[in-house]
Amino acid sequence: MRHSTIRGVVPPVVTPFHPDGTVDTVSLARVVDHLADAGCDALFALGSTGEVAYLDRAQRALVVRTAVEAAAGRVPVLAGAIDMTAGRVLEQVAEAVAAGADGIVATAPIYARNDAAEIEAHFRAIGAGCPVPLFAYDIPVRVHTKLDHTMLVRLGLDGVIAGVKDSSGDDVGLRRLVAANAAAGSPLTVLTGHEVVVDAMMLLGADGVVPGLGNVDPHGYVRLLAHAQAGRWEEARAEQDRLAALFEIVFQSPGRSGDAAGVGAFKAAMHHLGLIDSATMAPPVQAPDQAAVAQIVAILDATGLRSPAAAATRPA
Amino acid sequence: MRHSTIRGVVPPVVTPFHPDGTVDTVSLARVVDHLADAGCDALFALGSTGEVAYLDRAQRALVVRTAVEAAAGRVPVLAGAIDMTAGRVLEQVAEAVAAGADGIVATAPIYARNDAAEIEAHFRAIGAGCPVPLFAYDIPVRVHTKLDHTMLVRLGLDGVIAGVKDSSGDDVGLRRLVAANAAAGSPLTVLTGHEVVVDAMMLLGADGVVPGLGNVDPHGYVRLLAHAQAGRWEEARAEQDRLAALFEIVFQSPGRSGDAAGVGAFKAAMHHLGLIDSATMAPPVQAPDQAAVAQIVAILDATGLRSPAAAATRPA
Amino acid sequence: MRHSTIRGVVPPVVTPFHPDGTVDTVSLARVVDHLADAGCDALFALGSTGEVAYLDRAQRALVVRTAVEAAAGRVPVLAGAIDMTAGRVLEQVAEAVAAGADGIVATAPIYARNDAAEIEAHFRAIGAGCPVPLFAYDIPVRVHTKLDHTMLVRLGLDGVIAGVKDSSGDDVGLRRLVAANAAAGSPLTVLTGHEVVVDAMMLLGADGVVPGLGNVDPHGYVRLLAHAQAGRWEEARAEQDRLAALFEIVFQSPGRSGDAAGVGAFKAAMHHLGLIDSATMAPPVQAPDQAAVAQIVAILDATGLRSPAAAATRPA
Amino acid sequence: MRHSTIRGVVPPVVTPFHPDGTVDTVSLARVVDHLADAGCDALFALGSTGEVAYLDRAQRALVVRTAVEAAAGRVPVLAGAIDMTAGRVLEQVAEAVAAGADGIVATAPIYARNDAAEIEAHFRAIGAGCPVPLFAYDIPVRVHTKLDHTMLVRLGLDGVIAGVKDSSGDDVGLRRLVAANAAAGSPLTVLTGHEVVVDAMMLLGADGVVPGLGNVDPHGYVRLLAHAQAGRWEEARAEQDRLAALFEIVFQSPGRSGDAAGVGAFKAAMHHLGLIDSATMAPPVQAPDQAAVAQIVAILDATGLRSPAAAATRPA
Repeated sequence: MRHSTIRGVVPPVVTPFHPDGTVDTVSLARVVDHLADAGCDALFALGSTGEVAYLDRAQRALVVRTAVEAAAGRVPVLAGAIDMTAGRVLEQVAEAVAAGADGIVATAPIYARNDAAEIEAHFRAIGAGCPVPLFAYDIPVRVHTKLDHTMLVRLGLDGVIAGVKDSSGDDVGLRRLVAANAAAGSPLTVLTGHEVVVDAMMLLGADGVVPGLGNVDPHGYVRLLAHAQAGRWEEARAEQDRLAALFEIVFQSPGRSGDAAGVGAFKAAMHHLGLIDSATMAPPVQAPDQAAVAQIVAILDATGLRSPAAAATRPA
Repeated sequence: MRHSTIRGVVPPVVTPFHPDGTVDTVSLARVVDHLADAGCDALFALGSTGEVAYLDRAQRALVVRTAVEAAAGRVPVLAGAIDMTAGRVLEQVAEAVAAGADGIVATAPIYARNDAAEIEAHFRAIGAGCPVPLFAYDIPVRVHTKLDHTMLVRLGLDGVIAGVKDSSGDDVGLRRLVAANAAAGSPLTVLTGHEVVVDAMMLLGADGVVPGLGNVDPHGYVRLLAHAQAGRWEEARAEQDRLAALFEIVFQSPGRSGDAAGVGAFKAAMHHLGLIDSATMAPPVQAPDQAAVAQIVAILDATGLRSPAAAATRPA
Repeated sequence: MRHSTIRGVVPPVVTPFHPDGTVDTVSLARVVDHLADAGCDALFALGSTGEVAYLDRAQRALVVRTAVEAAAGRVPVLAGAIDMTAGRVLEQVAEAVAAGADGIVATAPIYARNDAAEIEAHFRAIGAGCPVPLFAYDIPVRVHTKLDHTMLVRLGLDGVIAGVKDSSGDDVGLRRLVAANAAAGSPLTVLTGHEVVVDAMMLLGADGVVPGLGNVDPHGYVRLLAHAQAGRWEEARAEQDRLAALFEIVFQSPGRSGDAAGVGAFKAAMHHLGLIDSATMAPPVQAPDQAAVAQIVAILDATGLRSPAAAATRPA
Repeated sequence: MRHSTIRGVVPPVVTPFHPDGTVDTVSLARVVDHLADAGCDALFALGSTGEVAYLDRAQRALVVRTAVEAAAGRVPVLAGAIDMTAGRVLEQVAEAVAAGADGIVATAPIYARNDAAEIEAHFRAIGAGCPVPLFAYDIPVRVHTKLDHTMLVRLGLDGVIAGVKDSSGDDVGLRRLVAANAAAGSPLTVLTGHEVVVDAMMLLGADGVVPGLGNVDPHGYVRLLAHAQAGRWEEARAEQDRLAALFEIVFQSPGRSGDAAGVGAFKAAMHHLGLIDSATMAPPVQAPDQAAVAQIVAILDATGLRSPAAAATRPA
């Protein structure tokens, strides 16, 4: 019942804002269309790339509802239920499911200081109250906990979680997870969150990817996955190399915060490509400055990524 | 308007639970009485010691309301508004103020990845929406950010915050904060969160303490502060040495989580002393086991801390 | 002049000890033979796996001399020159080169607290005094510094370093290094130090691997590299999966130190396979206990790794 | 036999260099004179402030010999024996003792990855080969290990170590160490390495301080300790507040390394005060730039610290 067939390319959808800071549902729907049309396998709303930490309850519900409606059944929509502990997470699960989410993504406890047994109990409590497939989100850079791979497989075997989104950057850990999962009959879908080593992680045994950069260039990731799934590893690498070059957009705001530089770069690129109406970030984060945007645009141009509209309005 | 006269002994009040996990308001009121009667200067509900991370919206409001009613104007009640970013924090500010909180305590952003300018903007946004005095809560072990002392003084001068609760354990930073605050005309009240070095931090210039251990032995901290404020430093040290010996209760659950060992020890001691009806912790945290409780009781006995009831029922 | 043709399989050679703690040169020579015969491309003496931190000057020189003599020109021998700062490193460079080392491996400063410019100057100072090719050793888990990829490529272009041994576990960083190196004309040889993701790192563009586990099963790594270099990625993955299963030997001493569990497991396995006479570790580290050794042997058996001698003496 | 009477003010002596990078023994002797004349209780050569990490064997021996000769029996001289593991540390112990050191200061293993039992064995091995009193140096910011206070007291009771230099910044840990040491009959001398909270740490029970800033203003620390030892805590605080204001010199090189900003500031101040002939740092570290020096001088002036020579040559 908890098993999920979600795998492949699952972009963490950005949350567009109007310049006044309200959620821009029109742009959001446009992004969802763009991603679904490009052949993505599923979408992940309210992830870190979706600026989930900055959204209040009403905004979170609005984002999920908008994404689900725009997806219109073409692709399933996962929703992040990101909060401190299980009881609070379940409040968000209820709202996300009411808004139509097809699956939930949740982290280890935040702010609380828990040990391994408590973290496992945390996921079991969420699983017990979650009516749709649950994915564990391993993102130590934000949660400051690394999820143990034996715990994850145990939760998979017990039907608590359907999969893992691994944004830990620990590829030794990922391989141990893949091996343990395979030995247990593959109860888990394993998705990597690192968009510049997808070729390598697919070779290693991952089932898919949650690429923030997929907001900017979903077609690239769809091609990359197709190559990997067909065993065309050299072609996969070439596509990934191109996407890795594109990923350099996130390094153009030195000295700025991780959210400003990373998500900000995705939004600046998407705005340049005509995918969203404004690159506005959730306060207090400011969008990349003009100099950074110029460099981002130069990188887009260098990798051949240009919208028809943009191409028409700018001299070649 | 934002200035606060709160200083001295400000215990972070534990949140007692019934064995079924619901908030035990009767025990909570008893604890508040105990702390107010002991001479504490203010109370801090919904702090880390109050297991704030584990409480949902309704529970948080119930805790503040119960504490405020039990305090009955004898002491002001601060409330933690602990959430990821300013917008979400302000939702909690509104509820805490509606429940009667006399002041608010908030941290830097959590989960979000922000730089110095964004963190300052975060506090300014909270301050703009907070109708009661605001305290900045510096607790890197949970928030993974250290607050800069020059920013804090700037926020104080601008009337954004009334004080700081420093649980950073960085005493060099604390001295720099105290010096910068004094040079600026002391806009901030500086409270240390480290209950075993209060004598030292008061000598160094702190205005008070937020001692988790104060739930167990408020009289000790009241005496300690009185000694410090009167310049009786040797007596302050002796009292602190006794309290530091008592603090060893938090080290009796090796291998357990910080929350289980620390808050769990406070609750086990309070239960033993008849202050709360159950040592139940918020799930998924388990109370200290029998062996740990036995050691905790032995430490209480060794430091002469015993309730009349407990003294009557156990052989001397 | 500084360019190096070293790439492929470059095991970090263990340092065998007699039970009395003196270096066992006979076993060391046997290991070198074993590795050279298996087809390894080069050897790396005095790495972390070689317990370099525990060896005094005389022992370090003895290890290099023994390895060079045993290699007898069949394979080049790199030597670690691991010390705190450039001047001290250069003392060790001189001794290693005098002992016959064909190349040197050095880290960022240790114990000293340096910024990016100082770290680059450190490598330039070492390079200026090093008459053989120099490799930068990126191992933050021990040195607590991550080497910047743009600095590494700059040092390569300037002829300061010939290559990088990347034990950082940061595969995003590795891909950026590989891309920047390629864009600069490939002045650097890039070797990964992570022995369980070699298939992935070779696909990603690494030139070789420094596998601690290669001491135990060099043939496996030689096959793995051959597959990768020929573009047989599925076969590379299958071989790597087998080696990753074998790598589980390092997780059989829970609660023990990294050196005891990791290098200890390699030595226990090598002793079991008849490659070294004793699994003795440098004091104060103790070899894995009997229970751990039993599990290590079971893993060796499960992966089909058994010496003829061992096979003969134990029932099938 | 291992017991030490060293306590009080024990500055970690800077190592002056000529502009060509050689050790300036004349300036070093002058500094030693200055410190001894000011009433310091002992000196600590080859500490972090002494840039020990950057000194080769010959330089280390020269520094100890020079300091011992200049001290001429007026004050004992401790020497750092800073290296990776016990065998290597003992090589340095032998040289330092041969050069006249009255005591040795050593850290937990560096670069090696050891557990608690191995760290204790490491100190026992050093103690067994050290003919003079041994001090354990707790400096996690460089060694990346925190020494356990129960281990330290055990080593004290067993005569392995005579004391502890605590540069951990963990004042809760320091109080636990002081309490455990007192309960064991005070086998250890406990020195704090944090020069801006000496009043607080003395109140808390420390026996003395190892102040880097004591190179610049030893008289201040001698007065501070005298106040503390006499129970004049308000006067101690006032003196410490003055010294803390002086300590701001180390924050005048933002963006520079810890060694450049910290030790560099001490040297710049000492050069300005005529105590050393050059502010040269060990390569690759550069002395603070002109702007930083100007700010350092302004801070010196503001705290009234001025050499007669400097006062004569600059307009008041």
